Amino acid sequence: MSTEAGATGMFISETHTDAAIWQFRVSKMLLEGKTEYQTYQICEIPRFGKSLFLDYNIQTSLMDEYIFHECMSQPAMTLHPNPKKVAVCGGGEGATLREALAHNTVTEAHMCDIDRELIDMVRVHMPEWHQGCFDDPRTTMLYEDARGWLERNKGANFDVILSDLPNPHEEGPALYLFTKEYYQIAFDALGDDGVFAMQAGSASENYPDCFACCMQTLREVFPYVRGCYGIVNSFFQPWAFIVASKKHDPLELTEAEVARRFAERGVKNKYYTARFHQACYTLPDYLENAIVEKGRVLTDKEPFFWTA
Amino acid sequence: MSTEAGATGMFISETHTDAAIWQFRVSKMLLEGKTEYQTYQICEIPRFGKSLFLDYNIQTSLMDEYIFHECMSQPAMTLHPNPKKVAVCGGGEGATLREALAHNTVTEAHMCDIDRELIDMVRVHMPEWHQGCFDDPRTTMLYEDARGWLERNKGANFDVILSDLPNPHEEGPALYLFTKEYYQIAFDALGDDGVFAMQAGSASENYPDCFACCMQTLREVFPYVRGCYGIVNSFFQPWAFIVASKKHDPLELTEAEVARRFAERGVKNKYYTARFHQACYTLPDYLENAIVEKGRVLTDKEPFFWTA
Amino acid sequence: MSTEAGATGMFISETHTDAAIWQFRVSKMLLEGKTEYQTYQICEIPRFGKSLFLDYNIQTSLMDEYIFHECMSQPAMTLHPNPKKVAVCGGGEGATLREALAHNTVTEAHMCDIDRELIDMVRVHMPEWHQGCFDDPRTTMLYEDARGWLERNKGANFDVILSDLPNPHEEGPALYLFTKEYYQIAFDALGDDGVFAMQAGSASENYPDCFACCMQTLREVFPYVRGCYGIVNSFFQPWAFIVASKKHDPLELTEAEVARRFAERGVKNKYYTARFHQACYTLPDYLENAIVEKGRVLTDKEPFFWTA
Amino acid sequence: MSTEAGATGMFISETHTDAAIWQFRVSKMLLEGKTEYQTYQICEIPRFGKSLFLDYNIQTSLMDEYIFHECMSQPAMTLHPNPKKVAVCGGGEGATLREALAHNTVTEAHMCDIDRELIDMVRVHMPEWHQGCFDDPRTTMLYEDARGWLERNKGANFDVILSDLPNPHEEGPALYLFTKEYYQIAFDALGDDGVFAMQAGSASENYPDCFACCMQTLREVFPYVRGCYGIVNSFFQPWAFIVASKKHDPLELTEAEVARRFAERGVKNKYYTARFHQACYTLPDYLENAIVEKGRVLTDKEPFFWTA
Repeated sequence: MSTEAGATGMFISETHTDAAIWQFRVSKMLLEGKTEYQTYQICEIPRFGKSLFLDYNIQTSLMDEYIFHECMSQPAMTLHPNPKKVAVCGGGEGATLREALAHNTVTEAHMCDIDRELIDMVRVHMPEWHQGCFDDPRTTMLYEDARGWLERNKGANFDVILSDLPNPHEEGPALYLFTKEYYQIAFDALGDDGVFAMQAGSASENYPDCFACCMQTLREVFPYVRGCYGIVNSFFQPWAFIVASKKHDPLELTEAEVARRFAERGVKNKYYTARFHQACYTLPDYLENAIVEKGRVLTDKEPFFWTA
Repeated sequence: MSTEAGATGMFISETHTDAAIWQFRVSKMLLEGKTEYQTYQICEIPRFGKSLFLDYNIQTSLMDEYIFHECMSQPAMTLHPNPKKVAVCGGGEGATLREALAHNTVTEAHMCDIDRELIDMVRVHMPEWHQGCFDDPRTTMLYEDARGWLERNKGANFDVILSDLPNPHEEGPALYLFTKEYYQIAFDALGDDGVFAMQAGSASENYPDCFACCMQTLREVFPYVRGCYGIVNSFFQPWAFIVASKKHDPLELTEAEVARRFAERGVKNKYYTARFHQACYTLPDYLENAIVEKGRVLTDKEPFFWTA
Repeated sequence: MSTEAGATGMFISETHTDAAIWQFRVSKMLLEGKTEYQTYQICEIPRFGKSLFLDYNIQTSLMDEYIFHECMSQPAMTLHPNPKKVAVCGGGEGATLREALAHNTVTEAHMCDIDRELIDMVRVHMPEWHQGCFDDPRTTMLYEDARGWLERNKGANFDVILSDLPNPHEEGPALYLFTKEYYQIAFDALGDDGVFAMQAGSASENYPDCFACCMQTLREVFPYVRGCYGIVNSFFQPWAFIVASKKHDPLELTEAEVARRFAERGVKNKYYTARFHQACYTLPDYLENAIVEKGRVLTDKEPFFWTA
Repeated sequence: MSTEAGATGMFISETHTDAAIWQFRVSKMLLEGKTEYQTYQICEIPRFGKSLFLDYNIQTSLMDEYIFHECMSQPAMTLHPNPKKVAVCGGGEGATLREALAHNTVTEAHMCDIDRELIDMVRVHMPEWHQGCFDDPRTTMLYEDARGWLERNKGANFDVILSDLPNPHEEGPALYLFTKEYYQIAFDALGDDGVFAMQAGSASENYPDCFACCMQTLREVFPYVRGCYGIVNSFFQPWAFIVASKKHDPLELTEAEVARRFAERGVKNKYYTARFHQACYTLPDYLENAIVEKGRVLTDKEPFFWTA
């Protein structure tokens, strides 16, 4: 049994549409396990560093988790003129919550994730992500289905809701958290100038389908709906996010105003900086076209089935 | 011998640093061959369409070749106020030349690529890329080492030089076309308001090393040096380009001016649009930092050895 | 885009049970196509040489096709004291027929394969396998389902029937050619001292299931049923065959008698030699045990579903 | 990030000559580590069960470790008429030692393996292999280079020496334990009717090179040299072993005599049974031919460089 240099080793394989299989090289397996909802692996990947896989799909790497989580949280948090009360739906690693709490305006943050076992693991083994935010006095943790919880919070007047959920796999727990009905529930739980944000799948030309549909669906519910994206290198593709708002349009936020809010609220970003605000929201034409050509309104009856 | 759905098929494998191996699924092999300089495969990839691999590394896919080639040619072509005489160094598929010729100001275009066998193949089998531009009356084809050719063209007063070369592998033909000496040769072959552009390797956080070094090196030679990037989805990473100029700074070009030049010159882009000009040149902090932290001046004596 | 030595290239991937995926390195793709029944690739594999894949599963390699095809044909042909009239069911590459015709006792050989397009391709592109045997004056070619054809040949008194069929995939054409009903049809088409042989799937400890069931099923129909195997290196596992006979027991054939028959009939084998006859029929205990522990009688109602 | 059924998961990749890469699916990683000499992984593979990889190359699987270790030990142990004093060179998992001790004639067994850290790990984590044999009162453990140790044991009159060493990689620790000089040292440490056995690499037609050379080399030193092989399914190829003897020829040992010795000595094998003795020693022609065509005498000056 022999080895050609570089040819061998341990890998986690992930299928990326019909076009490709990606094999992430594992230099060290740190922890493996299984919760009621998913399997997980925490491992070292060369150059990427410590990384989390769920059901053998990469979730986050130390190299660039800040890009994903800033894009997930910061555009929405920054758009709101005074975010005090925040909800995080999903967001297991705690980093979305961490980014929200970075705004010192926040007085209460409620994080609702269905997978308690995963979060218990994250607390111990992924401190680089949560950085203690689960124990921030402003934080309340809830372990249940985020849709049901949010529904019971109608009229709760959240300022910001951050929907950091797994992709809507046909048999996954998030299938009905990418539909018009869910977005309406979120709308109803927000205050008058509330902002909703979500991770919306790939921003690559190869698979913009999920993003396109979410855009079209949110437009049914919110007056302002804007796509943005981040270069999440460890995903091997840019990643899309959507900011939907009752009153404020992100495109009207100037670089100076963004800078002012960061300064006031003690926020120090590394990717979504004031300088980069505009670029984040500037979608390439292929994405703009995809919204029109591939987008459709998602409903509980006809949800999006993730196939990437 | 059996098959699980989706698990099998034909693949071309490409190593991406130590971090990963990418397997591109081949739904149909169209053509395989070998020139004096490289092996090639033209094949169909699901969703990507017809694609070219050189030495088992993806070069271009029909899905998004326009993104690579617009970013390679258009920022430099657009920056020059009146590009008449253009040189393309490398650029085998003909699409970089095609993009240059799209500017109706151009009166002569010289393309110098060392691999004549490859270009003869491209002429027949990759018409979607070259779209007849090799036979444009403005075109002159040269088949030799681009550096030597450019050196003999000192004082030729090119308006734009587009350096679309393979990455500088240790044993590859382009090792000394990523050095200060080469950039000086290019400088000397340009006119007073000449613009030089190059593909500069990955713009991912995982491997910005080549880009960083090329930035530092070009700064030794040209007064204006700006990085930009394109989301080349089929490369599974954003890709970096550099525009270096004797007189004009791309950042001073307004959206309106870009639009005006496109209109005047009959240019219709799909990725590098006037709207997108600014975003293309706005680099994320990780790239800006990489220039400082990982960049060094490349010389013939100490060139860059590509290891991604 | 770069390459670590040996790490990259082109591959055909084949899943081998849950335990593994095998990636065969393709140094040259020679021909690809699709018939009504299957896709095919003919390619060069380093060390293996020219090889055929059907539905992305390896079928045969020049390196060791003689091992598969001798084991498929020769034990049965040799067991019969005077094989004149032979039927080959399946056997697309023509090499099973070639091995049968090597016995100069044979006066007529009927080969029935459902996939005429494949055989037309084989005639032109795989001469190393068929070696002209399709055009042997003793050969009759039939292009239809072998079971139906054999059924119409009840009482045809074949001396030997060689069943060289694809594995019984759930949706494949051979599902009902691995059942008791089919074996009874074969029995009825044989003469009084007729011999039936088949390829019976893997002889590895990892997946002896198909072999075990075929053994148990043939025992319901034939008085003598013996397993043998060949070391088919390009399959990355030993391969099982079964010889079932109305009157003769292979285990009673001495090395001297095998040698005598080869000499008389002009047969020159490279793997199934007289010296190796006994070893071929000597199964390791794990296979003997698998027959008992994993074998069941296969019927049209409850056929074998291949899952390796 | 998504998953096609069966397409994804965790794998250990192993290169098998230029012809293929094998990806073993890992259902659970049990332990990873690194000694002074090698990295190791103990993991679960579907169907194969618990398995050990060294430097990302499979060493042994619970499914069929008995095949490897019986073939490694039992032919030599059985050939000796009264094996009392045994040496095991290498043999880290302890299973070769276990098989030797199964002969109740043995009064002392010396196992010499250079990698103490590995054996300390094996003691705790691989009890299925060693089954307590490290603590057998007849056992003496030595942790050093086996060649040097054996050299100091000239005249020690071992009855059997079992050389269960890693393949001779160019930079590996076993390069000079596959040479004529080493075999002479082993010869000199054996008694007058001593037997030497070794694992000799692949018995596949694809890579019989190592086996062929070891055969030719041992023939320079021992009067009786016989090859045998085992179907080690988890290696995806048959595996070769060599028995070299001063006085006894394995081919003269009858099935009855093998059975008698097993019975007398309390040996109960599952693969190398009395019934299977002959088949184990019957090599296919391709191996016999390889000895002649590819074999050469290995010396310290010109050793074998493993490249499979």
